[in-house]
Amino acid sequence: MNAQRVSVAVIGASGYTGVELLRLLARHPHVDLVAVAAKRAAGRRIDDVFGNLRGVLDLMVEEFDAASIAARAQVAFCALPHGESAPIVADLVARGVRVFDLSADFRLHDEAAWQQWYAHEAGAPHPASALLAKAVYGLPERHRAALRDAALVAVPGCYPTASILAIAPLLAAGLVVANGLIIDAKSGVSGAGRSPALGAHFPEIAEGIRAYKVAGTHRHTPEIEQELSLAANTQLQILFTPHLVPMSRGILACVYAQPSNATVDAAQLRAAMVAAYSHEPFVTVLPAGVLPDTAHVRGSNRAQIAVEFDQRSGRVLTMAAIDNLVKGAAGQAVQCMNIALGLVETAGLEQIALFP
Amino acid sequence: MNAQRVSVAVIGASGYTGVELLRLLARHPHVDLVAVAAKRAAGRRIDDVFGNLRGVLDLMVEEFDAASIAARAQVAFCALPHGESAPIVADLVARGVRVFDLSADFRLHDEAAWQQWYAHEAGAPHPASALLAKAVYGLPERHRAALRDAALVAVPGCYPTASILAIAPLLAAGLVVANGLIIDAKSGVSGAGRSPALGAHFPEIAEGIRAYKVAGTHRHTPEIEQELSLAANTQLQILFTPHLVPMSRGILACVYAQPSNATVDAAQLRAAMVAAYSHEPFVTVLPAGVLPDTAHVRGSNRAQIAVEFDQRSGRVLTMAAIDNLVKGAAGQAVQCMNIALGLVETAGLEQIALFP
Amino acid sequence: MNAQRVSVAVIGASGYTGVELLRLLARHPHVDLVAVAAKRAAGRRIDDVFGNLRGVLDLMVEEFDAASIAARAQVAFCALPHGESAPIVADLVARGVRVFDLSADFRLHDEAAWQQWYAHEAGAPHPASALLAKAVYGLPERHRAALRDAALVAVPGCYPTASILAIAPLLAAGLVVANGLIIDAKSGVSGAGRSPALGAHFPEIAEGIRAYKVAGTHRHTPEIEQELSLAANTQLQILFTPHLVPMSRGILACVYAQPSNATVDAAQLRAAMVAAYSHEPFVTVLPAGVLPDTAHVRGSNRAQIAVEFDQRSGRVLTMAAIDNLVKGAAGQAVQCMNIALGLVETAGLEQIALFP
Amino acid sequence: MNAQRVSVAVIGASGYTGVELLRLLARHPHVDLVAVAAKRAAGRRIDDVFGNLRGVLDLMVEEFDAASIAARAQVAFCALPHGESAPIVADLVARGVRVFDLSADFRLHDEAAWQQWYAHEAGAPHPASALLAKAVYGLPERHRAALRDAALVAVPGCYPTASILAIAPLLAAGLVVANGLIIDAKSGVSGAGRSPALGAHFPEIAEGIRAYKVAGTHRHTPEIEQELSLAANTQLQILFTPHLVPMSRGILACVYAQPSNATVDAAQLRAAMVAAYSHEPFVTVLPAGVLPDTAHVRGSNRAQIAVEFDQRSGRVLTMAAIDNLVKGAAGQAVQCMNIALGLVETAGLEQIALFP
Repeated sequence: MNAQRVSVAVIGASGYTGVELLRLLARHPHVDLVAVAAKRAAGRRIDDVFGNLRGVLDLMVEEFDAASIAARAQVAFCALPHGESAPIVADLVARGVRVFDLSADFRLHDEAAWQQWYAHEAGAPHPASALLAKAVYGLPERHRAALRDAALVAVPGCYPTASILAIAPLLAAGLVVANGLIIDAKSGVSGAGRSPALGAHFPEIAEGIRAYKVAGTHRHTPEIEQELSLAANTQLQILFTPHLVPMSRGILACVYAQPSNATVDAAQLRAAMVAAYSHEPFVTVLPAGVLPDTAHVRGSNRAQIAVEFDQRSGRVLTMAAIDNLVKGAAGQAVQCMNIALGLVETAGLEQIALFP
Repeated sequence: MNAQRVSVAVIGASGYTGVELLRLLARHPHVDLVAVAAKRAAGRRIDDVFGNLRGVLDLMVEEFDAASIAARAQVAFCALPHGESAPIVADLVARGVRVFDLSADFRLHDEAAWQQWYAHEAGAPHPASALLAKAVYGLPERHRAALRDAALVAVPGCYPTASILAIAPLLAAGLVVANGLIIDAKSGVSGAGRSPALGAHFPEIAEGIRAYKVAGTHRHTPEIEQELSLAANTQLQILFTPHLVPMSRGILACVYAQPSNATVDAAQLRAAMVAAYSHEPFVTVLPAGVLPDTAHVRGSNRAQIAVEFDQRSGRVLTMAAIDNLVKGAAGQAVQCMNIALGLVETAGLEQIALFP
Repeated sequence: MNAQRVSVAVIGASGYTGVELLRLLARHPHVDLVAVAAKRAAGRRIDDVFGNLRGVLDLMVEEFDAASIAARAQVAFCALPHGESAPIVADLVARGVRVFDLSADFRLHDEAAWQQWYAHEAGAPHPASALLAKAVYGLPERHRAALRDAALVAVPGCYPTASILAIAPLLAAGLVVANGLIIDAKSGVSGAGRSPALGAHFPEIAEGIRAYKVAGTHRHTPEIEQELSLAANTQLQILFTPHLVPMSRGILACVYAQPSNATVDAAQLRAAMVAAYSHEPFVTVLPAGVLPDTAHVRGSNRAQIAVEFDQRSGRVLTMAAIDNLVKGAAGQAVQCMNIALGLVETAGLEQIALFP
Repeated sequence: MNAQRVSVAVIGASGYTGVELLRLLARHPHVDLVAVAAKRAAGRRIDDVFGNLRGVLDLMVEEFDAASIAARAQVAFCALPHGESAPIVADLVARGVRVFDLSADFRLHDEAAWQQWYAHEAGAPHPASALLAKAVYGLPERHRAALRDAALVAVPGCYPTASILAIAPLLAAGLVVANGLIIDAKSGVSGAGRSPALGAHFPEIAEGIRAYKVAGTHRHTPEIEQELSLAANTQLQILFTPHLVPMSRGILACVYAQPSNATVDAAQLRAAMVAAYSHEPFVTVLPAGVLPDTAHVRGSNRAQIAVEFDQRSGRVLTMAAIDNLVKGAAGQAVQCMNIALGLVETAGLEQIALFP
């Protein structure tokens, strides 16, 4: 067992990603949680902010102060809103803190893409553009080597994690056509964050399902395209349709693809998927005929994957189910930290999904 | 106002389609509910079977007896399991009762298709094949003329209703390519019926989403294909992916299609959809930018439709939201009856959706 | 049939009580909906505010203007926040409009009680205290006679409706002790209104249950006490515990009481309950052994009641289930209007509960 | 750290308590899971039975065989139905296996009480009555000393755990009157088990709340009375009302009590509660004004407790929230094992509740 201790700070701890980081880090065998910072919640006990931490975590939320954090923490997890994160991350990195950033600020390598999708005004420069090239996209199943010793990791979004895991191996194996991918994804409501809004108000959301931000308007689109283009080794564009489902956690991504030629069959598709994930500690390719269910990965860092070949239409259908707050956010961030620091990759992430 | 009175029986009243028929028919301005039959529930008060009918409907459930039903009822709604329905329907039709059948037994015009998807043994003959040609597929938006004076109506399934409403106008207008349609549909759990089963057991279903019967294995596939082939005027095949969502009611069908040529644009698509439904009493084409939500049609016979053109991928995306038990079953059956009998089409179906 | 037409305005239409009033009034056989007013939503189409009204109600939301409303409407339903309602109600009443007020502003007859529970500053005068004596408490089962020709009706709160219906008959019959009543009530989340707040944010509320405002701090307490004191003919105090349940609609109130003497038995209790409600169009006393379920009254104006005698402890337990937005708000308001105007009491309220 | 290894079998692993035991035991630092037995699931992979175990637990379910289990396991957890458990438990105990039984078969010390509430025929003898006196009631907060070295532990029911934790300290301190306790409890649906039944069918349960088995008919009644009588040192009877809430997990028990004399005040009540639990590793007495929420203990072995004094009625209100499958079943069983074997009491139970 690795006896290494790591001092860790969580910045932006008052949202759902924050509480999930605390849940995992407080029980991580190598982590000492030394600081928890948040803007609005500063000065409150963390268990006044999150009732599930009562009796568990005796910490005060502090105002963010880069110098103070850098003095105490080797590692910081930043769970701040897009745009707010970049300057804070840059400050911490400059002070030698290793940062795992859960915002979108460093996920897109291409500044122009960032400007198009995220800049407050079109074309405005990225607040820390020099770091864009340094940041590693924190999906271990795609970039494990680059994560080792990374100083700044951009932890993927929840939809991208599920979408990329579901289809990248088939693109990489050349079994499906790069263009024309359709991703129909379904998310729990915690993905919308903890700030009260009509779109996450219980009576509006319970007992119904709906799509939102369709037809190329959801900001996870360029992130998925960046990574799938890398996998396919060609620039591709996707059609992405996110939905809001009346549940708190979970993402199910269904990807529809064209096989790359007429000889592609179910066995080949499955073999490619199994090969891609056979050594992955957190990805399960389900047996033929079994389909993923987000209820089977709740609270765990696991992804469940299925691949089907539809004889009638000659199309390929793949699916991935993850917990959006774990493998889609906090758990993946911890997995990245484990890799970056040379810890056992599964350390602190061995919880079995809570079912039912 | 039409003062006509119709005597109506409901056969197979102990499931969710049954109770929904009773909810609608008991308040229908032209209907006298004269008999309610069900196998297992026979001999019980109907409000012992369904608690929402207490104080509302004072009726005993009876054993089905064709002669007795025919003696009392001009119209019968049959909400029986597939396979059980056909002989009973045939008996009632032979006795001159006008039948609205909510099973799948008469939905497929092609006996071979029925044999492939529904026969207990492959190739076994349909129990009432002579009626297959007579039965009208009860989707008023596609077959209103044929429904007038129909003696036997096969009321569509819930997924087919949503799927066909979502895309048929674009196929009929030649704006999208007939083949290669992908239908990703999401359903509430009442669609699985009232018989207890692990797949509808609360703790298995709540707090998760999952697909089921994918890749050409769901029995609604041939029904959708039959009707979309008619709309497109060419034989087509679809890729159909149903999902189970943690809610009781509602279906959201998302259809992905290829425009038929490069000049097709958003305005054309919308115009075709609006034209198709402008006189429909129960279909609303939503304004551009507004997406359907099953929570907005709960308990009503309405369908909400959206059509989007994705500039990036050059694909068309359409959506329809319905209540699976109303427009997807009981409400549509009543709508068919109204048309068949020459009543006002909206009679008894004017309830506004219950929101929230 | 009563051919009378009534012109009706809804003031404060942008909340859940508002949309429920619109759902009922738009289909009421004697009502012409002439105006819909709301502050924030003014200038928008009502179906932009509530998606379930698309294709159903083609109305613009207007700014409230008392003169304009009075010129067009004989009747106004006010669904405004507590405190905001009173001056508007007073203005409308002064102009001869008959008002059904769904706020708490006129529910408490005793100005001192209002000052204690609702005044912004303790002891501040009621903004329209002269009307307090005129307002009729709009629970038809208790005050039907007074409702006839009432000019101002204070429609009860949701918890009070369920609580009073559950126990008032036993108090009135002298079968239970007036003091020491414990009311443990459970509500759906729509009772918290439509304004986004952490306490109604989907991920906070789904998958859990919790009490709130316990131990004499919930504002419905004095209203329940006022009415039960009238029923018992003695001043009484209750212990009231409200809970928030992960569902959109429904209230279940359980009342625990001491029988007034040792001879009280189950038969007597049931007989008193049945006698009280035998002629009530919207109240069902369930058969012995059957318990109410809020899922059986969703969307309907009905209340389901049970009464049990616990042999072991010698206590009485009664329960009432209602839909908080219908019998607990909008439906009850319409019922009051029907009575006040001499219409058939059930007009526009005959919808059967939506189950499942 | 305690380096002790314990070989453990789980008997009756195919229900929700079973999967929860597996979730905890598979990650317990001192446990080797050596056998998983179940009747119907025998011969299947355990991850075919529970999808959350895919990629996590590679075990076959076996038929129960006492000799085989005894040969391999020092400890057995039995999660069998009431009545089926006793003979199997007796067999295992006779073979020297230490048993933690999650059925009700050994919870009641008094055979007559068992005969009244659980015997198939009234008065039939208990199948292993000799063990009744040996079995320790496995609520560590009440019987920790007796649990050390216990050979047979009867793990409490979910309602009893919540109810007893909520009120026993006040009874033990003589602050509340022993008789007249009212317990109004609310449970998630997993408490009803995994066997499909109409009463746990999704569409019947979602979107509604209801009581069941009221007025002294629920089998947890005698168990609660046994333990509260011990706490109060006098025989008492309770009034117990269980409810089914549309959520998978969680119990909230609200207890209403009479203070034992007029001098009892809020401070005294709180002090007694805090004193009782100050050294308990899994019980949190919440700060004044904070109320428990089952969503804050999901997946954890913790209980959250509140105590309130209602000035107006002079009554005491206490509440406890637990996860019915963890502190109310599997977690408590593991806690008992830790104590019985002299392990660290919290070993394997340190998971933080999953929120949201």
